[in-house]
Amino acid sequence: MVVSKASPPVTCSDSTINLEKGDPLVFGKYWKKKSDECSVVIQGWEFLSYLSDTSNVCWYMLPELKGAIQRLHHVVGNAVTQDKYIVIGTGSTQLFMAALFALSPSQTPDHPFNVVSAAPHYSEYKPEIDVLRSAVVQWAGDAGVYDKNEPYIEVVNYPNNPDGTIRGPVVKSAAKGNLVHDLAYYWPQYTPITHQADHDVMLFTFSKCTGHAGSRIGWAIVKDIEIAKKMTRFVHLGSHGVAKESQARAAKIMGAICDDYQKFESIESELFFGYCKNILRERWEKLKGAIEKSKVFTLTKYSRAYCNFANESFETYPTFAWLKCEEGIENGESYMGKLKIRARGGPGFGVGPNYVRLTMIGMDDDFNELLKRLSMLSAIQISNSS
Amino acid sequence: MVVSKASPPVTCSDSTINLEKGDPLVFGKYWKKKSDECSVVIQGWEFLSYLSDTSNVCWYMLPELKGAIQRLHHVVGNAVTQDKYIVIGTGSTQLFMAALFALSPSQTPDHPFNVVSAAPHYSEYKPEIDVLRSAVVQWAGDAGVYDKNEPYIEVVNYPNNPDGTIRGPVVKSAAKGNLVHDLAYYWPQYTPITHQADHDVMLFTFSKCTGHAGSRIGWAIVKDIEIAKKMTRFVHLGSHGVAKESQARAAKIMGAICDDYQKFESIESELFFGYCKNILRERWEKLKGAIEKSKVFTLTKYSRAYCNFANESFETYPTFAWLKCEEGIENGESYMGKLKIRARGGPGFGVGPNYVRLTMIGMDDDFNELLKRLSMLSAIQISNSS
Repeated sequence: MVVSKASPPVTCSDSTINLEKGDPLVFGKYWKKKSDECSVVIQGWEFLSYLSDTSNVCWYMLPELKGAIQRLHHVVGNAVTQDKYIVIGTGSTQLFMAALFALSPSQTPDHPFNVVSAAPHYSEYKPEIDVLRSAVVQWAGDAGVYDKNEPYIEVVNYPNNPDGTIRGPVVKSAAKGNLVHDLAYYWPQYTPITHQADHDVMLFTFSKCTGHAGSRIGWAIVKDIEIAKKMTRFVHLGSHGVAKESQARAAKIMGAICDDYQKFESIESELFFGYCKNILRERWEKLKGAIEKSKVFTLTKYSRAYCNFANESFETYPTFAWLKCEEGIENGESYMGKLKIRARGGPGFGVGPNYVRLTMIGMDDDFNELLKRLSMLSAIQISNSS
Repeated sequence: MVVSKASPPVTCSDSTINLEKGDPLVFGKYWKKKSDECSVVIQGWEFLSYLSDTSNVCWYMLPELKGAIQRLHHVVGNAVTQDKYIVIGTGSTQLFMAALFALSPSQTPDHPFNVVSAAPHYSEYKPEIDVLRSAVVQWAGDAGVYDKNEPYIEVVNYPNNPDGTIRGPVVKSAAKGNLVHDLAYYWPQYTPITHQADHDVMLFTFSKCTGHAGSRIGWAIVKDIEIAKKMTRFVHLGSHGVAKESQARAAKIMGAICDDYQKFESIESELFFGYCKNILRERWEKLKGAIEKSKVFTLTKYSRAYCNFANESFETYPTFAWLKCEEGIENGESYMGKLKIRARGGPGFGVGPNYVRLTMIGMDDDFNELLKRLSMLSAIQISNSS
């Protein structure tokens, strides 16, 4: 259908709801339930040293965090850690830049290496690279149209932020390329775990795995020891390591998740990934209904797949809803703005303003308010067509 | 005197002691005493969000950490925080780069801004800048010899790492310059607090203030809101904030220090800064004796000054010992290496290899072993001269 006006047919007098960021507050419900079991106590004398384990490439990583990361991937089956190196960072953000620098030449190249990712791509890759204005790496946009015969690094993000799709590399170039796999969302509350990821450089983050975004813990699983050393050096020079309080807490929480899954009598829907998947499934069902009725947007269609972890087939329940505006609406972000909904528009993701991204992992109140405002649209549509 | 050989006159069969880094383990004794009082409990549901206080320029900073930083500076009287902005980072390392980028032009300049610091200067400034190979800022070495008519940023570090001296800016250039004051060691266990520092951009770190280096908490006190915003944006793009577990713990520990100082019946030598100053004073007295007897090195001389915080005069007790080799020893780091002491040689600090830096804040065992090895030197000297 063609929507007749670029403005929403309703005016909203309520306060603005912010669905622009992927702040993982939805998981709070689960962690409230498990609060005592996952609490950590840190005493005054602990964690004075910069160092954690000088026998490890990543010398600032607590051994218990390394063990917890390996155990979690083993339990979930989403990534190969055997014979690989783990490097931690202050969020996967810091490791993203560490990976780009580690994969670039040690000597300043004639031209910076081109970093590309297929559009729509994560909106922060570009500003994270641009701010440094480095002679080593530069943002070069959409991997799908990259045709330069120059060295490049392709970032493959699956399930992809913003659209939740499962992807592989797409660059077709005669030049040498390296890959960085950003697997922030490859966890079984969001998407079926169909395979053990086994790539040269894989990035994960505690923020999206368990919802503890305030802890700023990211990790990379790296095949080549030289790349792992260079990434560690980048984190050393950027922040002299990673907060140990957060490391200790991440280890505790990952351990608690694994303990629960390894108890014989556990009930899947009460365990972390099952519990959170059910929340997301329910939200997605409600959102799909509301979007369909609104006649203003369409959603990406996801096919079902068998999840080796959950032993069942399900659709992807992405972290974000990626909406395409129907014809007649040119700017999705502005349209949302008129509904007093803060959302992130397509251009940041390398596509047109007729796309817009909304978080699916925010607070219940905000999500319910989103449904309410979308239902106001559909009521107007019905009234217009009757 | 002229030392006859470039090699130490003893061979050491013991294991290597590492005095190369400034790992602040000496403060562990104090924190063991205060362990329970300073312990923090963090529950499973806490710190899910990226955000802390969206009404603050530094949106990821916990309000309690901001308050604790302001209170600590108020109690110690070492820096003006009133009408200034506080920006936190993952260590002051991250804030150092954030400050350089914030003080540089938003558009890529024709030539990168030159970053200089008077030699001997902190050995990590250069590699921290170099790794990014940025078109915005570049390391340009010793501020004392800077004579280019190009925009620059001078880093003033006082008391200075490595030599503990109190300094001001030294660049004489017709070009426009900005200053960054690195005040990591301007705390009353190391040096008399003679004034409230009041500069445009001041950097501090929890690592050297209380000895909690593993927490990776640094803060900047910034005069100009636009600079504070740019620094916050740099931290946002580099790591999406700072670990909240560490923030909460830093707030608790700073608060405990202040509480103790504000109790009426407190005894200075049992309070944090007094207790730690006494440890450092004792170490320095022993080291001075050992160095004097060795006849191989000389130490910087420090004058006494009145400390407004402690209400007494004392010398500086720097974090590092900065040794100058007597004539005849060309390479202090190698010389120490033959004593199986890992130390950091002069060239990293922008001076000759006849200088070498040793930490004064490491473990007791290592410090005592240093004294033992130095005493072996003096025994040989005495035997040679008799």
